[in-house]
Amino acid sequence: MIVIEKAKEMQQYSESLRNRGKKVAFVPTMGYLHRGHLRLMEEGRKLGDCLVTSIYVNPTQFGPTEDLAKYPRDFEMDSRLCEGVGVDAIYFPSNDEMYPLHYQTYVDLQVVTQNLCGLSRPGHFRGVATVCAKLFNLVKPHVAVFGKKDFQQLVVIKRMVTDLNLDLEIVGLDTVREADGLAMSSRNIYLKPDERESALSLSRGLKKAKGMYDKGERDAAAIIDAVSRFIGGHPHAKIDYVNICDTTTMKDVARLDGESVMALAVRVGVARLIDNYVFGETLNV
Amino acid sequence: MIVIEKAKEMQQYSESLRNRGKKVAFVPTMGYLHRGHLRLMEEGRKLGDCLVTSIYVNPTQFGPTEDLAKYPRDFEMDSRLCEGVGVDAIYFPSNDEMYPLHYQTYVDLQVVTQNLCGLSRPGHFRGVATVCAKLFNLVKPHVAVFGKKDFQQLVVIKRMVTDLNLDLEIVGLDTVREADGLAMSSRNIYLKPDERESALSLSRGLKKAKGMYDKGERDAAAIIDAVSRFIGGHPHAKIDYVNICDTTTMKDVARLDGESVMALAVRVGVARLIDNYVFGETLNV
Repeated sequence: MIVIEKAKEMQQYSESLRNRGKKVAFVPTMGYLHRGHLRLMEEGRKLGDCLVTSIYVNPTQFGPTEDLAKYPRDFEMDSRLCEGVGVDAIYFPSNDEMYPLHYQTYVDLQVVTQNLCGLSRPGHFRGVATVCAKLFNLVKPHVAVFGKKDFQQLVVIKRMVTDLNLDLEIVGLDTVREADGLAMSSRNIYLKPDERESALSLSRGLKKAKGMYDKGERDAAAIIDAVSRFIGGHPHAKIDYVNICDTTTMKDVARLDGESVMALAVRVGVARLIDNYVFGETLNV
Repeated sequence: MIVIEKAKEMQQYSESLRNRGKKVAFVPTMGYLHRGHLRLMEEGRKLGDCLVTSIYVNPTQFGPTEDLAKYPRDFEMDSRLCEGVGVDAIYFPSNDEMYPLHYQTYVDLQVVTQNLCGLSRPGHFRGVATVCAKLFNLVKPHVAVFGKKDFQQLVVIKRMVTDLNLDLEIVGLDTVREADGLAMSSRNIYLKPDERESALSLSRGLKKAKGMYDKGERDAAAIIDAVSRFIGGHPHAKIDYVNICDTTTMKDVARLDGESVMALAVRVGVARLIDNYVFGETLNV
């Protein structure tokens, strides 16, 4: 496994693989890897002849009051974990490499970014779309693998890839959970022991929503109300949003007729946790 | 020479060339080709093993009151001209191919787009950057050739390519002019015979600016004032802007110390004409 820090070197590495007819798979991450990431890498390993991952805590997707400075980092451990799952190359750029002097170009999506995390984290998806566009141009993958835990992010990236004619396939994988149902996240380390029960209100709330849907409930407000009351009943849980949206536009729906997703963001202590459930699918909680 | 209309076909064509070690050169155009375009294609022919051009009147770079509907089009003639200069493939997409249902992604630059045409044509450079990003992803060139007549556009595209890590080289070529000095433009066909003399005030104004600079004038206001008075003295000429800018930031400068460009936009009848001169360089007027 090699570690690449420079843009030109990354592009030459991938271009040389592509020219030899090799299929490049890519898993972009912000590091501090958990089993969710490793699951993405295992899938990438299967999808490509060569697996590249990136480890980069992207400043442009953090708001000014967010946790950029204290976002957990551990490159040594990440590097060993990558080697363990068969990563061929880690792209590990510096901020100066990614956003040099005079940097000024951003990718904006006008619809799917407007609701949910787009409302509570202004500029977040502009940062995500921009850094992914850059990473796709740097790593030149045939396929890139993302987790469905960040559901709106996956919708944003798929839409950008279609709209900007980026020649790669985006694959989304099911959320990986702890034994108790908590969705894996690098931010889970912020949780204190007495906050755990409140953190589980997200996955349990989704299970409640699934239950109502499976019994025939199609009124979004009824499901949102029940889930909000359930989560709100937990002492450390502060709801950021509880919405049901169309999975194409990410706009709120009143009735669950087309493909809909329940998306949650809840603050538990200093951790902001997200989770989601696409109605009609299985839920491993 | 082949004509390609579909995105996937365009990408496969270029990918197959790249995989065989061929260098792809690209000249994007809005069609209605003149000798300026053909000069770009001749250069593209030299720079690559294979030359692709695109003919696409991009709606997102036109404002609501601009000349999108009446912009001149003649694909038959363009196609013959391309064949004549050795183009291998014309990419000729439809609007539905470029901007399908749910399209919503745009590339924005925050600094170099703010002055000049960015002021008089709001959204213009967003449209230019977006369509160029798309075309670069569709055609996958090693090198793309643009004219310096659209100087700010060239700065925008170079900046976007750097910022988004697009793996291609941008080459800018000198403006090609009519015998009387008028910069070649597809919009010159809007000019009526009695407007020609007024149209020549742009290139002649630039020559005046060069003369002042060569004699040692470094005060931007003095040069702008002289050129504005000269152009304004022509009966059909209505100045949109006369500015002197830094060529990296495209911000106005007070003194011509670093690399500076005089940029002009003038309405002559229904035609909006632009021209420019980078101080210290030659001017073929």
